[in-house]
Amino acid sequence: MSLTVVGSIAFDSVRSPFGERDRMLGGSAVHFSLAASFFTDVRVVGPVGDDFGDDDLAVLTGRGVITDDIEPVDGGETFFWRGHYDYDMNVAHTDDTQLNVFADFDPKLSDESRNAEMLFLGNIQPDLQRKVRASCRAEFAALDSMNFWLESARDSLEGAISEVDCLLLNDAEIRELTGEPNLARAARAAMEMGPGVIVAKRGEYGAALFSGDEFFAIPGFLLEDVRDPTGAGDSFAGGFLGYLDSRRAAGDSVLDHAVLRQAMVYGSVLASFNVEDFGTERVQALTRDEIEERLRDFRQITHFEVEPVPGASRS
Amino acid sequence: MSLTVVGSIAFDSVRSPFGERDRMLGGSAVHFSLAASFFTDVRVVGPVGDDFGDDDLAVLTGRGVITDDIEPVDGGETFFWRGHYDYDMNVAHTDDTQLNVFADFDPKLSDESRNAEMLFLGNIQPDLQRKVRASCRAEFAALDSMNFWLESARDSLEGAISEVDCLLLNDAEIRELTGEPNLARAARAAMEMGPGVIVAKRGEYGAALFSGDEFFAIPGFLLEDVRDPTGAGDSFAGGFLGYLDSRRAAGDSVLDHAVLRQAMVYGSVLASFNVEDFGTERVQALTRDEIEERLRDFRQITHFEVEPVPGASRS
Repeated sequence: MSLTVVGSIAFDSVRSPFGERDRMLGGSAVHFSLAASFFTDVRVVGPVGDDFGDDDLAVLTGRGVITDDIEPVDGGETFFWRGHYDYDMNVAHTDDTQLNVFADFDPKLSDESRNAEMLFLGNIQPDLQRKVRASCRAEFAALDSMNFWLESARDSLEGAISEVDCLLLNDAEIRELTGEPNLARAARAAMEMGPGVIVAKRGEYGAALFSGDEFFAIPGFLLEDVRDPTGAGDSFAGGFLGYLDSRRAAGDSVLDHAVLRQAMVYGSVLASFNVEDFGTERVQALTRDEIEERLRDFRQITHFEVEPVPGASRS
Repeated sequence: MSLTVVGSIAFDSVRSPFGERDRMLGGSAVHFSLAASFFTDVRVVGPVGDDFGDDDLAVLTGRGVITDDIEPVDGGETFFWRGHYDYDMNVAHTDDTQLNVFADFDPKLSDESRNAEMLFLGNIQPDLQRKVRASCRAEFAALDSMNFWLESARDSLEGAISEVDCLLLNDAEIRELTGEPNLARAARAAMEMGPGVIVAKRGEYGAALFSGDEFFAIPGFLLEDVRDPTGAGDSFAGGFLGYLDSRRAAGDSVLDHAVLRQAMVYGSVLASFNVEDFGTERVQALTRDEIEERLRDFRQITHFEVEPVPGASRS
């Protein structure tokens, strides 16, 4: 079993009401890889500059992530993002973005990465996503994007969406993509663009899944400490697709709604850990036991039985 | 078993992207009563004007609501609200509010209303809420309010909150009340003001419950048709407290976390029907079978089992 991810490998400088960090390892491919590494073999594809050091690489290899397709660019600098969060931690404010080595990124994948059974196209320029999709044999491909590409490269993004099996977007972005203000209708409209599975990410409110005629909704885990939401969506995607790949390898269909639900829960669990500390700090230190414990906690806070109203029924 | 509610009885004029209605029956006490009427005996307290007709009364009595404490004010006009919703149906835009008979409302409760075991203080001026609370023997009292009172009558509202057992507020209002940006911490801080049970209403995203050290979260029901969210919070409160009263009457503790969870689900079910059509149209026509069917649907869209990751465990 294996899962290839293409996306940003970055340094992030983040300020939130709970502290501040400078040039932490981050980026969609990094957050995704670490989360998925608890479930399957992950191959990460993306460029880095001379400032990407052995310590940074060790964060990934320490979790067993296969880094053969990380491409060092001589004389280049790694993608850089600076942002901050105010008290509404659902909204990221971007202060600076430096594409650096990403400006001229031309993905070159090894045979192993091209042959992976599953593929995640992290939030990068949609033409790059399409190029990677076309070069990979993955039987199940998922795509994340953002409002920036919707507004600056809609045709290309719609093309990319039509070529994948699963679309993960914020709920507001699914509405914007389809022009449908109602999320359930927007998800159906997004399905008509190609993907059979739509995941609406809702920040602290959790996530919703649409596949075929079925849907599933899970609230966010209610945490008392949320320090840095950066990468939560990618950690969700990593837990979601990593778990799906482990089920696929065990002979289950990743289009089975019960399997997809389980994957939603694992995605939510990984996202909930991601936000507890800055950058990759919490997920780096995470254990399998902690994941299973939070899975049980998640069920505990969401579970209910259907019990009748006592006494004589009232019409 | 019985449940007294004090709150507004109103005429609402509402415009949403899905249509428009003029002077529909509405108000917090009306939406609450209709929802609670499926579970227990409801007594509604509040003033109306000469424009409140037999047809309006029949909407309530048709669902068995006890209207003896509806107080007609000779020569007065019923409370009036005009508002609209744009595509983000989570946000109500108020265009006009006319207090009318509510401006001089001095609640006078019958013995039957004062002796009810449960009490709901709908969103009205907090000094009125305190006066009603003081006159009632209810063993369990719940209160709803809004940012308007937080900003214009904070001391009085804090006093009212300290005198009830359960607080229902929008999540943003719980944050504003306590100055805590994190919802879980805000709920704990609100508990320290008095109520042992805190319900955070989250619009289309559902609701969260805090009681003692426990919490529970439920997503909103994903509807393809949401025409008018006015009164959804009051319908939630009606389903929640109505169900609690039915369990109380059956000998259960309303502070039992499992009972509170069930009540959260019934509240969510009633709110989900409320928003499907304008004003009280959907809940008026609702049947007990439809409630039970949606309860099962709710469980279906939120339920998951904890299943292990297949294959060898990865550290």
